[in-house]
Amino acid sequence: MRARMDTVGAVRRLVPPERLTSRVTALEDAFVIGHFGLAAPRPDRPVVVNGLVDRAVELTPDDVRALPQRRVESVHECFGNPLAPGEWVRRAANLVWTGARLRDVLDLAGVQPDATSVWARGADHGEFGGETSPDYLKDLPVDAVLDRALVAYACNDTWLQADRGGPLRLVVPGFFGTNSVKWLTELTLADHRPEHLFTTRLYLRPGPDGRSVPVRELDVTSVLIDVTDGVARGWAWSSVPVTRVVVTADGRPVTAELERARGRAWQGFRATVGSARTITARATDALGRTQPTSGARNAVHELSL
Amino acid sequence: MRARMDTVGAVRRLVPPERLTSRVTALEDAFVIGHFGLAAPRPDRPVVVNGLVDRAVELTPDDVRALPQRRVESVHECFGNPLAPGEWVRRAANLVWTGARLRDVLDLAGVQPDATSVWARGADHGEFGGETSPDYLKDLPVDAVLDRALVAYACNDTWLQADRGGPLRLVVPGFFGTNSVKWLTELTLADHRPEHLFTTRLYLRPGPDGRSVPVRELDVTSVLIDVTDGVARGWAWSSVPVTRVVVTADGRPVTAELERARGRAWQGFRATVGSARTITARATDALGRTQPTSGARNAVHELSL
Repeated sequence: MRARMDTVGAVRRLVPPERLTSRVTALEDAFVIGHFGLAAPRPDRPVVVNGLVDRAVELTPDDVRALPQRRVESVHECFGNPLAPGEWVRRAANLVWTGARLRDVLDLAGVQPDATSVWARGADHGEFGGETSPDYLKDLPVDAVLDRALVAYACNDTWLQADRGGPLRLVVPGFFGTNSVKWLTELTLADHRPEHLFTTRLYLRPGPDGRSVPVRELDVTSVLIDVTDGVARGWAWSSVPVTRVVVTADGRPVTAELERARGRAWQGFRATVGSARTITARATDALGRTQPTSGARNAVHELSL
Repeated sequence: MRARMDTVGAVRRLVPPERLTSRVTALEDAFVIGHFGLAAPRPDRPVVVNGLVDRAVELTPDDVRALPQRRVESVHECFGNPLAPGEWVRRAANLVWTGARLRDVLDLAGVQPDATSVWARGADHGEFGGETSPDYLKDLPVDAVLDRALVAYACNDTWLQADRGGPLRLVVPGFFGTNSVKWLTELTLADHRPEHLFTTRLYLRPGPDGRSVPVRELDVTSVLIDVTDGVARGWAWSSVPVTRVVVTADGRPVTAELERARGRAWQGFRATVGSARTITARATDALGRTQPTSGARNAVHELSL
């Protein structure tokens, strides 16, 4: 039952930002991060729903495709982001996911009232950080994701391939990619959080009271992708809509023209920068959060021509 | 003062076991694992010794080379080991390290009696497991490593290059490679263990009472490297000398001829296997530990011809 690992060891396919020219990122330009490598599960691999449910169920990809279909365009972003000066490694893409709502999937099993946490397990396994792990596991607060998350079976209107986590993966629009469990095998309803390398030990950051919390909602950020004929273009996004992007052209601020938000997709922006050699972009979102100038994973993006 | 990262993101240079034919592994055949990538520090980068010492000192590579020289042949092995069936990924080499004894280095600062832990800090930094880390850090029990560890400046009789952790790195013969901190910047004496991604959250395993302990002493293990003219050859090692290797040839056990232990180097073994198609090797060490048959990082190595 264990999935074969097609590649053993970490996989990273990254692209430079200048390839992110389309609103919807082509699959070949969308980053891939696989800490254990890529799994190669059977195309009919089912997902089991169990734990605090009325009845455990096992759903094949066909079963999931038979549920009401939902199509969501959303930013897909890895939390990992080395703070290497000048290195653009935000690992982001804007993709169109198709699948069933998590609520509709879980309703087939009947979520019991005391379930607060849904544990999503992936088939990938192997070694990371000196630990051998039999699977990948992420827990999510049930109420926050029931209507937001998809059990997805297609991406950019093609069936989900193994390198994208197919046949079925979880997708949580607005959350960092680490939550969108690839090669989904099991959804367990529980009344507590699980201990696992990827739940309580990695992908954490300080919360409001300083204690570690899981990496979930996206940060406000922006990326410059090109400058053509004196006009700089880029994308901006956050866990809520971005309301303003300020671009600087050799230090001179220019308020950028910003697309309106479309759900959880990224928003294009453009600004006239003339012949400037150093351009920066800084986004602010509807919650009033603005990108830090430095030292943070979502710091202001600077482009030197 | 921060080291430039020559490569951003995990680096793995691995070799198949059939290239490990020499007792001392050629540098081009010795694995490289860099979770953050490879740092490129200045060749005269010093090491600071501080904390619970009589006086903090800063030592250049020349200062360390002026101390009594010690040359140690020892197994260098990464703990990381995916349990992929048939995949040989022990990531091991046998190298000759030259440097100053850790005791001689620390004596220049004067270790205070209440120091129980030495924290070795490396210049490499970046992102791993969704965490951005400003450095690499490992703690070691002072008493266990004072006479064992080296502050090394040469490997296989050539100056330590940046891809090997130069100009100065820690080497702890008999311990897994994760303890041999590359691009050493600081040795801090303390009376407690530090919290860090690589001390209390990764590179841990269950100890005698089931609680997590750091990965330190090597496990008993063996690797088959080739079969020529009906004779199988390999290497065996542990944290103490290996006393016996049993080879099977199509299931028939043959006690292998085993080299005597030389310090912490690996020991060659050879066994007549004739025209057998399936060969296994299983080592036992001076503490009576034998390799498990399966399911463990140091499980029996099987070769199918």
